[in-house]
Amino acid sequence: MTRKIAILGATGSIGKSTLDLVERNRDRFAVTSVTAATNVEALADIVRRTGARLAVVADESRYTDLAELLVGTNCRAAAGEGALVEASVGEAELVIAAIVGCAGLRPVMAAVDAGRTVALANKEALVTAGALMTDAARASGATLLPVDSEHNAIFQCLAGSRVKDVSRLVLTASGGPFRSASADAIGAATPAQAVAHPNWSMGAKISVDSATMMNKGLELIEAHYLFGLPSDRIDILVHPQSVVHSMVEFVDGSVLAQLGSADMRIPIAYALAWPERMATPARRLDLAAIARLDFEAPDLDRFPALRLAREALEAGGAAPIVLNAANEVAVASFLAARISFLEIARVVHEALISADYDAPRSISDVLEIDRVTRKRAEAMMKASCP
Amino acid sequence: MTRKIAILGATGSIGKSTLDLVERNRDRFAVTSVTAATNVEALADIVRRTGARLAVVADESRYTDLAELLVGTNCRAAAGEGALVEASVGEAELVIAAIVGCAGLRPVMAAVDAGRTVALANKEALVTAGALMTDAARASGATLLPVDSEHNAIFQCLAGSRVKDVSRLVLTASGGPFRSASADAIGAATPAQAVAHPNWSMGAKISVDSATMMNKGLELIEAHYLFGLPSDRIDILVHPQSVVHSMVEFVDGSVLAQLGSADMRIPIAYALAWPERMATPARRLDLAAIARLDFEAPDLDRFPALRLAREALEAGGAAPIVLNAANEVAVASFLAARISFLEIARVVHEALISADYDAPRSISDVLEIDRVTRKRAEAMMKASCP
Repeated sequence: MTRKIAILGATGSIGKSTLDLVERNRDRFAVTSVTAATNVEALADIVRRTGARLAVVADESRYTDLAELLVGTNCRAAAGEGALVEASVGEAELVIAAIVGCAGLRPVMAAVDAGRTVALANKEALVTAGALMTDAARASGATLLPVDSEHNAIFQCLAGSRVKDVSRLVLTASGGPFRSASADAIGAATPAQAVAHPNWSMGAKISVDSATMMNKGLELIEAHYLFGLPSDRIDILVHPQSVVHSMVEFVDGSVLAQLGSADMRIPIAYALAWPERMATPARRLDLAAIARLDFEAPDLDRFPALRLAREALEAGGAAPIVLNAANEVAVASFLAARISFLEIARVVHEALISADYDAPRSISDVLEIDRVTRKRAEAMMKASCP
Repeated sequence: MTRKIAILGATGSIGKSTLDLVERNRDRFAVTSVTAATNVEALADIVRRTGARLAVVADESRYTDLAELLVGTNCRAAAGEGALVEASVGEAELVIAAIVGCAGLRPVMAAVDAGRTVALANKEALVTAGALMTDAARASGATLLPVDSEHNAIFQCLAGSRVKDVSRLVLTASGGPFRSASADAIGAATPAQAVAHPNWSMGAKISVDSATMMNKGLELIEAHYLFGLPSDRIDILVHPQSVVHSMVEFVDGSVLAQLGSADMRIPIAYALAWPERMATPARRLDLAAIARLDFEAPDLDRFPALRLAREALEAGGAAPIVLNAANEVAVASFLAARISFLEIARVVHEALISADYDAPRSISDVLEIDRVTRKRAEAMMKASCP
């Protein structure tokens, strides 16, 4: 039976891996709609390869270009946020939510409200709107399938388990490029050093998040909302080889772990085929060749972002939105060499302690808190580094 | 709801751990029958603690002693193989099959034929009668729950999966005390060196099996019958810390692993509570404290028992019975300092190539092949070491 899927963010890294798997399994999937932020050329190419019937570019100024590129296809062009939502709640049963950033929030929420199965690769959905998303999923009967390798690992380990049988989740973290660096060396870190991630090839922003370990802090928040466990039952464990993608400890003392090579097609395939599995061309794990796996407790002194994220999670309400927005602005400033590496956490900390927002009751509230926090964080940085 | 359980082999190590868990969860379990090989004093004590209504000693010469010890209780005493079968197919829904050796075969088969849920801690059941047991379970609807830590790990990793989604099972092996010993050192190994197992405290026979790695060969055979995968899709991986108890690789490249501290109460609790889980006092796994896990391919030259076991599995029919029986006799001779360490594998090899039995069609056939093989292996050793 063919499964109809929508790919939101089809031209990005997750989108490309999804298309790779879909093209290897043409009998199993039919792509109904695809979206991109701005890259209409790549989007039109995807339309030709998949036969999608709706293609949406978020940037409305690219609408005419997209429409022209789609002449001669059976695919309708559309643009803007409303069209992203339309692509999300169309005929697809499974929505791959891989739009980067807060631009993904409304389309994801629309798919959740419509009761779809949503393969979540948009981190902001759970970090900034975790309670809204999971409440909406409960109300509509939507299923959230995490695509992030850590949360996908936990989802796999939980398969068929009762929540009451789970005692603890363990998110593994590579520790990033500064895992064994001294506090002084971390203080002097340059953007070039920070973006050199040891195990995964990633964009600059997420590489810096890996260097500060804020990525793991954000994942902690996501894990809380996805799996419903409180902060004190979600641990972070540094594991430099990134072979164990995360773990679940049960009440009997058993620990289940998911392992694999660093290939996002594995968790994406799990989401595509769930509750079954499908073959992927991902390299098989060869533990005898890897030979050794290391584990260590994270150092909250050298990596204060972890502590900030946990505090934001425990504060709840708008705090995770503030954490995420201030971090994004601070990382951009660091990459532009406007602030030092250690100031990233300082900006986030100041944003958190100076914030005083009610808990968001809608995606509009989330977007507004996000917008105001970014503005305030920018102002803060200007004030301290004139 | 109280679950009625029978404990076959109540006075041994698995029996004791089971009783520990049952006594911590008196509201969940009622022990209906208990058995022991010879130790009537310990058995009578267990009757007093559990309120079991039937106690069976395998050794018929101990019947009178048992009956006297049970005066004043509500428990009936019985003895011999027929009574073991009676204890197995009584009112218990769950049978803990922890009788050591071929003495366990008839009682286990009786429970399987009766469609019970059988927690299998008797290795011989699957090694020597794997096809008979699993065919019988299919016919009667019995469920086999493996208690052995490796197979229990695989069972946990498979939870809810379809067989067609599994690509490979990976049995982990500590590698035993001679993992990094030279071939010469292994050749000169004494019984004292062979029984010094690095991770688990075990009896002498099974410790020698760990030193030759025959234990892993036997587990390979068990895994084949339990999980239905052919020999070439069951790998053995040396992992000296014994923290990862075994793994399953799926078609998408995902690997699920079960980890835990070296405490048999974890897999026993899994079998007792299945398909749910129950709390145990087992020490929680602390990977940050363990710090490091190592993996390496097994060396079939230094550990020929692994190769012999795989050959016996692939030959099928009576070969695994011959492997097991010849190994037991050879290990006993080694422990009695009658043959050298390397001769254990040589005896097994000779027994395998000289054996010519039809595949067993009943437990009686299994027991007969076992008996004849032991006799022949003894004769072989006498002939070569007069």
